[in-house]
Amino acid sequence: MLNLLLSKWIMHDQLVNTIKKYIALSDDDVDVIHELFSERILNKGEHFLSAGELCQHVGFICSGIVYYGVNTDGNETIHNFACENSFVSNYDSLINKTISIKDIVALEETTMLVISAQNLEQLYSRLSEGQRFGRLLMEEVYTSAIKQILSFYNNDPETRYMEFLRQHPDLVQRIPQYYIAAYVGIKPQSLSRIRKRMTTM
Amino acid sequence: MLNLLLSKWIMHDQLVNTIKKYIALSDDDVDVIHELFSERILNKGEHFLSAGELCQHVGFICSGIVYYGVNTDGNETIHNFACENSFVSNYDSLINKTISIKDIVALEETTMLVISAQNLEQLYSRLSEGQRFGRLLMEEVYTSAIKQILSFYNNDPETRYMEFLRQHPDLVQRIPQYYIAAYVGIKPQSLSRIRKRMTTM
Repeated sequence: MLNLLLSKWIMHDQLVNTIKKYIALSDDDVDVIHELFSERILNKGEHFLSAGELCQHVGFICSGIVYYGVNTDGNETIHNFACENSFVSNYDSLINKTISIKDIVALEETTMLVISAQNLEQLYSRLSEGQRFGRLLMEEVYTSAIKQILSFYNNDPETRYMEFLRQHPDLVQRIPQYYIAAYVGIKPQSLSRIRKRMTTM
Repeated sequence: MLNLLLSKWIMHDQLVNTIKKYIALSDDDVDVIHELFSERILNKGEHFLSAGELCQHVGFICSGIVYYGVNTDGNETIHNFACENSFVSNYDSLINKTISIKDIVALEETTMLVISAQNLEQLYSRLSEGQRFGRLLMEEVYTSAIKQILSFYNNDPETRYMEFLRQHPDLVQRIPQYYIAAYVGIKPQSLSRIRKRMTTM
């Protein structure tokens, strides 16, 4: 029980520290955050969001990794990964209330603090600088989405792999090769060749 | 002189009415908007932003049309158009202070109200619901950018043309064929063929 409380406290502390990178938080603000987010654990392979559903939550990852994938005619392409201290959501589906074409899936056991779309509106209006937090978060979501999509279409596999290593040096050991290859847009064997070439360079 | 004042008044009124679609505005808020935006007229062909520059402004179009273009090795591709009552900017360059790869160019004489990046921050903090306006604007910018990029890469020319007609039924008469073809991603002759096919359907 004490362990559970301790781990809840650590999770909320992680979230509060992350939000503090955007805005200042008063003690009352911290209470609002505690009230509006709730804990969720995803098992390995469990979906945070499934294609065909309406996205109704934003999650904050306390530990673990998720991937964003799109399944086209049985072929799964991975668009992105997210790990500790990141917010995850399909914001397009969340904002415009459109059906998600993306899956968001846990790659390992993932502990999260989750907020519903309705509570997110409350967060924005009840935190002293809540709307500013929303604006800064959306600016970040916007610019990283643009980068990610352009890289998906414009970069060759080797460049995408180099970019992945640069952005997530810590994740390369934690994500199975199969998923990294699906992100880079090639078969696992071709990724091995790229890695071999890079080590002999 | 009276005409000039009248036209300034109409322009600001247009802007205020557009911002009111996002948030409520008090009389004080309206004064802040008047203070922070200034008039600018672009001649046909004049650049609001040139590739290679840092984007330091957001414009609000009162009359006229601009296009967003990217010039690669002398080949110009058109990514988007914007007309009356729209905000225009390269938000990625504006937010992250990175060099723009896009041009934003007037397709006809275009009157605008323009705000600098610095004044935009003031607008967000001084309007009673300024941060909320920023958040809602960024949500819109985000979702429309995603749609636009995905359409650019995933849709064939005919679908892109149909989508253009659906989104901008009023612009098809105002934009020269050459630019519509560059937006759709084909030669003007191929666009003529698509149009002919559509009229005989």
